[in-house]
Amino acid sequence: MGRRMGERTVVLGNRPGVVSWASIVGRKEQEGPYGGRFDQVLDDELNGETSFESAERKMLETAVTLCARKAQREMGEVQMLLSGDLLNQIISAGYAARNLQIPFYGLYGACSTMSESLSLGGMLADGGYADRLIAATCSHFCTAERQYRAPLELGNQRTPTAQWTVTGAGAVMLASGAAAKEAKVRLTHTTCGRVIDLGIADANNMGAAMAPAAADTLCAHLKDLNRSFEDYDLVVTGDLGHHGRDLLIELLRQSGVDVREDRLFDCGCEIFSARQDVHAGGSGCGCAASMLCGYLLPELAAGHLNRIVFMATGALLSPTTTMQGESIPGVAHAVVIEHGEE
Amino acid sequence: MGRRMGERTVVLGNRPGVVSWASIVGRKEQEGPYGGRFDQVLDDELNGETSFESAERKMLETAVTLCARKAQREMGEVQMLLSGDLLNQIISAGYAARNLQIPFYGLYGACSTMSESLSLGGMLADGGYADRLIAATCSHFCTAERQYRAPLELGNQRTPTAQWTVTGAGAVMLASGAAAKEAKVRLTHTTCGRVIDLGIADANNMGAAMAPAAADTLCAHLKDLNRSFEDYDLVVTGDLGHHGRDLLIELLRQSGVDVREDRLFDCGCEIFSARQDVHAGGSGCGCAASMLCGYLLPELAAGHLNRIVFMATGALLSPTTTMQGESIPGVAHAVVIEHGEE
Repeated sequence: MGRRMGERTVVLGNRPGVVSWASIVGRKEQEGPYGGRFDQVLDDELNGETSFESAERKMLETAVTLCARKAQREMGEVQMLLSGDLLNQIISAGYAARNLQIPFYGLYGACSTMSESLSLGGMLADGGYADRLIAATCSHFCTAERQYRAPLELGNQRTPTAQWTVTGAGAVMLASGAAAKEAKVRLTHTTCGRVIDLGIADANNMGAAMAPAAADTLCAHLKDLNRSFEDYDLVVTGDLGHHGRDLLIELLRQSGVDVREDRLFDCGCEIFSARQDVHAGGSGCGCAASMLCGYLLPELAAGHLNRIVFMATGALLSPTTTMQGESIPGVAHAVVIEHGEE
Repeated sequence: MGRRMGERTVVLGNRPGVVSWASIVGRKEQEGPYGGRFDQVLDDELNGETSFESAERKMLETAVTLCARKAQREMGEVQMLLSGDLLNQIISAGYAARNLQIPFYGLYGACSTMSESLSLGGMLADGGYADRLIAATCSHFCTAERQYRAPLELGNQRTPTAQWTVTGAGAVMLASGAAAKEAKVRLTHTTCGRVIDLGIADANNMGAAMAPAAADTLCAHLKDLNRSFEDYDLVVTGDLGHHGRDLLIELLRQSGVDVREDRLFDCGCEIFSARQDVHAGGSGCGCAASMLCGYLLPELAAGHLNRIVFMATGALLSPTTTMQGESIPGVAHAVVIEHGEE
């Protein structure tokens, strides 16, 4: 039976295994500092399809297929797909699930989706409700830009706090029991996030809107487990970007957390280099997902990292709420991922 | 530990309790045959707010609050909210979660959300990952109409296969262990749905688009548990409407299922009467949710129903995929709900 610790944290006592993972990114992401780490790189934005939306769906589908293949499993052996994305009605995930024919739970957590799917998937695998499941997500610069902001053709100027939506996808296979026997990476805890809103209303400053949720979840997580930054090789956030990361540090210090900045790793700050002109950093579900599957999980498997807390953050706004004058709520879920055998 | 049966069904061996539920509907739904069954009725479409979107969010929030109150629980005792809705970026659920401050997993399953949230929530409660959680969803005629179809002010004519989006919300509290001791209603099994698409491309014929998914899930469910219609007082679908229900019967018979039409209860066919001019019936997340919480759960608690399988169905299209010429995939998750003590 699952065991809860403190207010919001769940102990995954059976330590479900992370048995395989796959990552795909676009050209721009390949040109960043982690470019050589990803499994596949798209030839161009259309990925062989006729629309950007279809290109994104295909990228997610390929990541899931590749993840199963790396685990030497047929698609029919995957009992659940937990997935979502940024597009209205999560069409990338929904249509990918149609083509893949894996039983499907659709999620919406905006850019927090990679940790939301791992959090839910971790509990389902831990409890033996699935022997094998895949948690996956993606985003695409061209689809997100035209849905959330403006047609690319307008060539709008970007503000200094703006972030660049990553074109990328990540898929992670979790397993329990015998199916997890060989796994060198394990999930051990998860902390469910609350929706936090400190009143930021600028849709071009998502990092600031999401930082309070990251602070809230991390404070609860550390308190529930009586842990500190010292207990983690890295405290990973999804896509706060440079401004959001600074704000997170400030909020954590205000709450009395002893922040070790050298261990605070924001995927949005890392995925692009300064010369790539992305302003405040990368964003999108695919940012944390591709960095997790391209860089962090391999490092954990190799034992270069021993234990991280992975916390993708999402901004739960919509163009409608922005037009109606609402501020931007954020959410962040945390999962602890460790190097370790059974 | 969770136990799987057959290909896609999970046995909830600890029989999590359904400890309370709440339903809210609009005026039109009150005028239907189940009008007297719902806990609350909105005064008007705006529900005291300044936009339809905000009205919908408030309705969901009220349903969750009422559900906790009926269980005599403070909001702080609810450890998770599993919720989603029809609006882009599930803003009803996201903003409700912000105001309620319950740890939140956002879902998107279109009109299947009530059974998706019960399916996931059932496993989480069964495994002891939450002592108490709420699964909830909602829809609103005025928000869905303008997001998915056309501005209400246009007064477009509706096709005979069109359905009427229900203005309504439902919230269900699940509990495990000691917290479920008194419960008179239990979840016993769940079957996760696949995304099925038989090529229907008419966005005004959602029932036909969703029926294949309902047939697929029900066939898998009955096969996995070696059950038939005889094992259920009712086989409940969410919002297939009259055309979709007919198609479901045909598809089930083609698959060799012995359909008992008198036990096939579609919430979309039931919620409005023929004289209410809703064409093929009701639809929307709030349709199955309000009928479950207003009618089905009270009947189960009273022992008038002994065992049902509840299977809300969702159409996973978006206006974008429709414009790009895609057909409409559907999904349906099943949960078995029984009258019964611990």
